[in-house]
Amino acid sequence: MSDSTLANEQDTLLKLLAIEEIRQLKARYFRMLDTKDWDGFAAVFTPDAILDSGAWTITGSATIRDRVSASLEGIVTVHHGHTAEITVDSPTTAHAVWAMADELHAGGNPEKGLTGSGHYHEEYTRTDDGWRISRSKLTRLHIAPLPGGFHVAIPGDN
Amino acid sequence: MSDSTLANEQDTLLKLLAIEEIRQLKARYFRMLDTKDWDGFAAVFTPDAILDSGAWTITGSATIRDRVSASLEGIVTVHHGHTAEITVDSPTTAHAVWAMADELHAGGNPEKGLTGSGHYHEEYTRTDDGWRISRSKLTRLHIAPLPGGFHVAIPGDN
Amino acid sequence: MSDSTLANEQDTLLKLLAIEEIRQLKARYFRMLDTKDWDGFAAVFTPDAILDSGAWTITGSATIRDRVSASLEGIVTVHHGHTAEITVDSPTTAHAVWAMADELHAGGNPEKGLTGSGHYHEEYTRTDDGWRISRSKLTRLHIAPLPGGFHVAIPGDN
Repeated sequence: MSDSTLANEQDTLLKLLAIEEIRQLKARYFRMLDTKDWDGFAAVFTPDAILDSGAWTITGSATIRDRVSASLEGIVTVHHGHTAEITVDSPTTAHAVWAMADELHAGGNPEKGLTGSGHYHEEYTRTDDGWRISRSKLTRLHIAPLPGGFHVAIPGDN
Repeated sequence: MSDSTLANEQDTLLKLLAIEEIRQLKARYFRMLDTKDWDGFAAVFTPDAILDSGAWTITGSATIRDRVSASLEGIVTVHHGHTAEITVDSPTTAHAVWAMADELHAGGNPEKGLTGSGHYHEEYTRTDDGWRISRSKLTRLHIAPLPGGFHVAIPGDN
Repeated sequence: MSDSTLANEQDTLLKLLAIEEIRQLKARYFRMLDTKDWDGFAAVFTPDAILDSGAWTITGSATIRDRVSASLEGIVTVHHGHTAEITVDSPTTAHAVWAMADELHAGGNPEKGLTGSGHYHEEYTRTDDGWRISRSKLTRLHIAPLPGGFHVAIPGDN
């Protein structure tokens, strides 16, 4: 085994490790969001992270925490991540596209809320504390209101 | 490359392998359950495994097999695993949280059944035959009956 | 560390890399399909790939592209891949079972379309351009029409 092969193996191993860490970072994003652990939710982002829903954009993990938690008060949310295309660009940067689906349940009879599907287009930065989401933009394939309609307001910067 | 680096690489590789094996173990859990391959379903658990649905708890892979298969007779089930946070604690132990969704279709017009989402909180043991689920506890984000209502009884020990 | 251990580690690393590449190949399959990027969709298959929906079979990536794109014109589709059991059989061949769910939305009031779940049973070949799907067969757990009914025709060879 040549040194060059060893170097390639080391590189492959580090890339696979980064991919797994980013996969688990996104799993934590979903779990913190849906269990409304807002400290844990803020901690998956870099301090200057940008969250772009397509309809609105908010900047900074503290603002993301405040706006998202306020807008989802009283609403049961379910967000699921499906297959992901994760590319490691350097030891400290990566990007990905994730297939996703979400449900917002605002209660009522008939139930108010929505279900939808789309893709997260994301960038990641490796900090001293591990990988963090530095940018996340959501594009939509489909959104449908629940029978009672969609009355959930999530305000952003624009 | 120092011996210490080589040792770390070996450790990282073994952890990534264990994570992949556990990911595929859980995939087999879902597939055996939904295709009603009850021998295969029992085989994903350790003999003394504990299954806790939140509403009931059953102990032992043989009991899990008997109770779950009996309760789902005549019901089409769909269970999906989404993002997972898998932590390898030692060469033979690991734990994880899995996002999940399930559907039970009992038929009828309007159709009876339910759809729901939540998280599996699980522990794994590596046996001579590979990784097995030794404990699984389900917590729920949301459950909704299908239009015809929910008439599926899944009895447990308590 | 013996040479034999090094060889095993190299083998394990290559298998984990192949599994990740196939996972991302299937992610690309879903994204190309649902964003209707038909060139990208054709490119995830080998030229002689076989696509078997259970109801119909079509052969060849060019035919797959033409038939699938024509049948889904005007329909919003959402396909999600869930847990996968991926087995690497050799450096250039692999197979897998993937849990899946799909939605076809044909619009209208009440909305026409369907939702369903099942499993893809697939074979993969590693080409000079990376892993490609060489055979994909879909089996179903459940299909349900949307309230407006199911009026989507996807013709095949048989």
